[in-house]
Amino acid sequence: MRIHVQNPADETVFPITPQQWEAAVSRAPDMADLRVSFADDDAGFAAAMAEAEAIVTWTKVVHARFAKGALPGVAPRLRTIFCTSAGLDRLAPFDWLPDSVALLNNRGTHAAKAGEFGIMALLMLANHVPWFTHDAREGRWAPRFASVLAGRTVCVVGLGSLGGAVAARARQFGMRVIGVRSSAAPHESCDEVVAQGDIDSVLPRAEFLVLACPLTPQTQGMIDRRRLALLPQGAKVVNIGRGPLWDQEAVCDLLDSGHLGGAVTDVTVPEPLPAESRLWRTPGLIVTPHMSSDDPATYNDRSLDIFFENLRAARAGQPMPNRVLPGRGY
Amino acid sequence: MRIHVQNPADETVFPITPQQWEAAVSRAPDMADLRVSFADDDAGFAAAMAEAEAIVTWTKVVHARFAKGALPGVAPRLRTIFCTSAGLDRLAPFDWLPDSVALLNNRGTHAAKAGEFGIMALLMLANHVPWFTHDAREGRWAPRFASVLAGRTVCVVGLGSLGGAVAARARQFGMRVIGVRSSAAPHESCDEVVAQGDIDSVLPRAEFLVLACPLTPQTQGMIDRRRLALLPQGAKVVNIGRGPLWDQEAVCDLLDSGHLGGAVTDVTVPEPLPAESRLWRTPGLIVTPHMSSDDPATYNDRSLDIFFENLRAARAGQPMPNRVLPGRGY
Repeated sequence: MRIHVQNPADETVFPITPQQWEAAVSRAPDMADLRVSFADDDAGFAAAMAEAEAIVTWTKVVHARFAKGALPGVAPRLRTIFCTSAGLDRLAPFDWLPDSVALLNNRGTHAAKAGEFGIMALLMLANHVPWFTHDAREGRWAPRFASVLAGRTVCVVGLGSLGGAVAARARQFGMRVIGVRSSAAPHESCDEVVAQGDIDSVLPRAEFLVLACPLTPQTQGMIDRRRLALLPQGAKVVNIGRGPLWDQEAVCDLLDSGHLGGAVTDVTVPEPLPAESRLWRTPGLIVTPHMSSDDPATYNDRSLDIFFENLRAARAGQPMPNRVLPGRGY
Repeated sequence: MRIHVQNPADETVFPITPQQWEAAVSRAPDMADLRVSFADDDAGFAAAMAEAEAIVTWTKVVHARFAKGALPGVAPRLRTIFCTSAGLDRLAPFDWLPDSVALLNNRGTHAAKAGEFGIMALLMLANHVPWFTHDAREGRWAPRFASVLAGRTVCVVGLGSLGGAVAARARQFGMRVIGVRSSAAPHESCDEVVAQGDIDSVLPRAEFLVLACPLTPQTQGMIDRRRLALLPQGAKVVNIGRGPLWDQEAVCDLLDSGHLGGAVTDVTVPEPLPAESRLWRTPGLIVTPHMSSDDPATYNDRSLDIFFENLRAARAGQPMPNRVLPGRGY
């Protein structure tokens, strides 16, 4: 089988190297027959696409290379696209994707890192750190005391690999965990789970709220101003999903009014966030630059292992576990 | 037995209330015969000291009320002083304390809260948060990626209830934990323990350093400029003990030079930190206002339980477990 790895030309931290590929094959001897090429330029891409049956690449490369209607002409033998991101909202709507091509996301690579970032954010909010870092700008020593997480309630929206990992860490610290996902199916790290349509019923109990779901037409704008107001006075909020999941202006307004007790967000609208954005200046809010879930020490190894698991499933006639369903959006 | 609780007149968050006392007695029925008084003023103090055999109070009250040589005249029947702080360095040297009076610290109350603050600080440093909060002051979106804590090495100086709790949390996240304390006795949450005199031998391996020991003549200035330079390039440092344990100017210099990769400190010299201090402005450094280990939801309940444990030991003819040894300093 003919595989092509197309790295972005400007990628310095996360390019997939031939050494990483060889190491992944050594962990998966059944993949030793794969023939692989690597490129980060136009010529390498064009040369590989004549024969490639699968491509491993970035969402921005897919977005740039496969305009609507273009794919069959550009890559006539291509049947599998593996993107190294977990969230492929940038590629929606999926009208550019032929039915004959499986689009795979990178769900699973990010769990350990996202779980650590999530519990860090909860601890920072419990300890008032977003207020202290704003006090520091004015040299103001203003103690506020804080209680431990044990016994307090967190609502985690999205129970995929990111949200599931945050829920597991929160449980480890003794929190009561309410999960929200598309169905109300139970989850091993949650005390209760409700379907997205019932989220209003649990928000009034959420001392902490964590957004960790994919961005789809169903989740865009889900945490709007009305729902933020349903949270209890002093609630603390975290977003490690995508900026458009919530109304970030309303988050700032409700921090300013005192209804919200703090916020940590790893995602913004737009990204990069421009210097003049009020998010940089709102007391009680810490912005991190979209790094919560990407661990460079393990990222490509985990990504290639997941890619191979999907190829193995296809060879066995099984569904590919990371296949994105265009109608669902993730 | 006659007990007096003297709250500071200006204390708003942590005063011990009669309701908290009654609740503690209900958890310790063998203490039901204690007779207790409460005051926060001079008259109440003076009235109680004629008869009190034990006092529960703050270090600053002891410091103000019991000058050198004064105690036998002020409180002729006093045999036990329970201070609600864990670190009593403010009361050293202990030349004001008659041999006939047992001085007790509040070791044990702070463990759960300190453990959470400690792992929060380690996660914040691993995730470059002290750099992002400084970038935010200038509206600068500058991603840096980060790896999980698992497999990385932390050196925890002090293995009392604070340091022991941090070590336990670090172990829970898969870190390799090196402990430093007065002796090299093993500790259940440490992979290895060295005596304080051998600290130079482990600093070059400490990707993370946490100071959580008491301030004594033996520990003052322990982490000086020379020892900070022994840490590996990019090391990240935390202080939840006392400001004078390290050279805070050297910490700032080594952050500016790039030798240190970040710092979180809950303690400073002096406290409160004045607005003009460079600690507020040094990139890579986050200051929190001495709140790491005090949980108002549980503080007084835990404190009174610990006080009663000590009275119970004394009644049984056992050593009081929280007694401070003046020669040792804690």
